[in-house]
Amino acid sequence: MLTKAALVNAALDQSIPLARPLKIHEAMRYSLLAGGKRVRPVLCLAACEMVGGDQSLALPMACATEMVHTMSLIHDDLPCMDDDDLRRGLPTSHKKYGEDTAILAGDALLSLSFEHVAARTPSTVSPDRVVRAIAELGSAVGSAGLVAGQIVDIASEGDVDVTLEVSAHINKYDLEYIHIHKTARLLEAAVVCGAILGGADDESVEKVRRYALRVGLLFQVVDDILDVTRSSEELGKTAGKDLASDKATYPKLLGLDGARRFAGELVGQACEELAGFDPVKAAPLYHFANYIATRQN
Amino acid sequence: MLTKAALVNAALDQSIPLARPLKIHEAMRYSLLAGGKRVRPVLCLAACEMVGGDQSLALPMACATEMVHTMSLIHDDLPCMDDDDLRRGLPTSHKKYGEDTAILAGDALLSLSFEHVAARTPSTVSPDRVVRAIAELGSAVGSAGLVAGQIVDIASEGDVDVTLEVSAHINKYDLEYIHIHKTARLLEAAVVCGAILGGADDESVEKVRRYALRVGLLFQVVDDILDVTRSSEELGKTAGKDLASDKATYPKLLGLDGARRFAGELVGQACEELAGFDPVKAAPLYHFANYIATRQN
Repeated sequence: MLTKAALVNAALDQSIPLARPLKIHEAMRYSLLAGGKRVRPVLCLAACEMVGGDQSLALPMACATEMVHTMSLIHDDLPCMDDDDLRRGLPTSHKKYGEDTAILAGDALLSLSFEHVAARTPSTVSPDRVVRAIAELGSAVGSAGLVAGQIVDIASEGDVDVTLEVSAHINKYDLEYIHIHKTARLLEAAVVCGAILGGADDESVEKVRRYALRVGLLFQVVDDILDVTRSSEELGKTAGKDLASDKATYPKLLGLDGARRFAGELVGQACEELAGFDPVKAAPLYHFANYIATRQN
Repeated sequence: MLTKAALVNAALDQSIPLARPLKIHEAMRYSLLAGGKRVRPVLCLAACEMVGGDQSLALPMACATEMVHTMSLIHDDLPCMDDDDLRRGLPTSHKKYGEDTAILAGDALLSLSFEHVAARTPSTVSPDRVVRAIAELGSAVGSAGLVAGQIVDIASEGDVDVTLEVSAHINKYDLEYIHIHKTARLLEAAVVCGAILGGADDESVEKVRRYALRVGLLFQVVDDILDVTRSSEELGKTAGKDLASDKATYPKLLGLDGARRFAGELVGQACEELAGFDPVKAAPLYHFANYIATRQN
């Protein structure tokens, strides 16, 4: 049996044929098939199975979350944004195909993500669930989602004063805002859409959403903790970069032990939301929460 | 009673609140509310009414077609694409807000278009129609639609030799390809989606699609005719720019009279597709076909 990631890779490969005009399809495939852990699609399929659906019901949506993620990477890498030349050791889309094609490849992937869900979700899924899932995906991408995160990210980077010197509270808020909108929100949508398409009742959908929100926050708390502990090793002192700067972090607010306790509570609460589901089918989501909690980088 | 265009303008205004982050929502509103004839949304509403639906059923989709159109204008105007500083007498999005914000405003409008249809279409429309309409819209935007047209457009412009010197046949093909993908395809989707959401049966949807295809081709034929006749007036000779160059056009293939006859046939065939519908409700689509046939610029 194919692992979920292999299943996703095969479906992504089929989702974009090498049709004419060749250049745009090559550029779309170049970025979409460049590898990566397929975290969002795998969680989408896992949530679908956990609520009792066959994972094939959520496969087009799983692909859609990766298309959206890839679009955001292509556009974020552009010279007028983060200006990155390399991604995963390969030239970024605009380095390889030019800025114009990179922008269009992102546009086409974004459009395809919605079309793919609408056109390819098996007809055994009731259409009102497909519509709900599309609305959920859209809200994770647009001006209340990925795009919101990126515009605040750009605004922060453009203005060094904002990042280093304004009050710690605003700074912490900005960092969390960027994290929530650029990372956590699409992950939440992937999990929630998986549950919707898998046939979950409203209560189960909300459980899955609370799970995703806890894991999203957990990610940030662990990030703050790692900043302190990594810095300790690197610098030979207990104060990390965040602690030395004026930046508010969970270790600063709660102490390092307090932050670790909070992370433990979050992983506990996240897993608690999974308690009512078949434990075998819930295993991937359990493992993911624990992976986030114990990651070392 | 509000005209259809006024109804669309009011709905577009409400579709994007001035929420935080302010800059992205300002940029989205700046381009979306900059005016324009709202051709696609009005035809979408008209098709909905023609097949017996209340136009409110298609209003979110009507707005979506304008969001998509606006996105394509914002991205096409970018320095790495057509590099335009002005649109409708106002600074283009990237001139006013910067390239990064312009790209993100386009992304957010594209995402919102699909979300808007999924979240806002009245619940009296059966969800399977919403799903079909979303798939139709997506296919008009992505790498088989708008994006395909733009990438061929860029490829042609970048290489002067291609535009002026290669065989007339390929050149004609390129021009038509660009027109069909950048203009005709979204117009077709607007009309077809209006019919789907208005409750049309499959046969009526196909009639409406054939109407749109005829009108799309008509537009190109009239463009070719106007190139000859306008040039005649401007240059004081009967040979227009297209005729003087190596470019294949309908007047060249069919003669000027032949091309006019062909245009007449197309408008007749387009209107024939409307014959089975209530003539009062079909009037806007009749008028549009005749407007395209008789336009002078």
